[in-house]
Amino acid sequence: MTTETLAGASVSTRANVYFDGKCVSHSVTLADGTKKSVGVILPATLTFNTGAPEIMECTGGSCDYKLAGSTEWRKSSAGEKFSVPANSSFEIRVSEPYHYICHFG
Amino acid sequence: MTTETLAGASVSTRANVYFDGKCVSHSVTLADGTKKSVGVILPATLTFNTGAPEIMECTGGSCDYKLAGSTEWRKSSAGEKFSVPANSSFEIRVSEPYHYICHFG
Repeated sequence: MTTETLAGASVSTRANVYFDGKCVSHSVTLADGTKKSVGVILPATLTFNTGAPEIMECTGGSCDYKLAGSTEWRKSSAGEKFSVPANSSFEIRVSEPYHYICHFG
Repeated sequence: MTTETLAGASVSTRANVYFDGKCVSHSVTLADGTKKSVGVILPATLTFNTGAPEIMECTGGSCDYKLAGSTEWRKSSAGEKFSVPANSSFEIRVSEPYHYICHFG
């Protein structure tokens, strides 16, 4: 089941633009102070670095991802999540727009 | 003065992707039911058609725009707005990411 909306949110009106727009997100703060972002990755193969740990929840489309230190590509589709440790990285391969919520912490 | 955040909002977790990603937005519904979108246009010259009337509020960057029936390009920068009538169109020319809130109705 996919999360269709985030309710009771404060949404930043400036986008975060990464990799020349291959990844665009908007930052969201929930009523309890929790910070997330909602975004989309367009067809590309990209490497992201993490500071805080992240959970990437797919809300539409799909991706293949490979965590740092792994040799295995795994698929993540709408309704599925994957976790990335703090101070690490992951590669992501997208062939159709991959819509996501990024949960931090 | 720019609008930094939209508060008390319900945010769609799937992006709207237009023109191969040259324009990406997320739909937002405020507590009173008002619908808006927050988005960004990347460097490009694009033509948008309106159904409902729209007010485009710039929250970062800038654009030049030309309304249907006009021959004049005008600039819109952070903190400024322009209005587009219903069932019309406008051209927009962006050379640095143009961040916006689109107000409908």
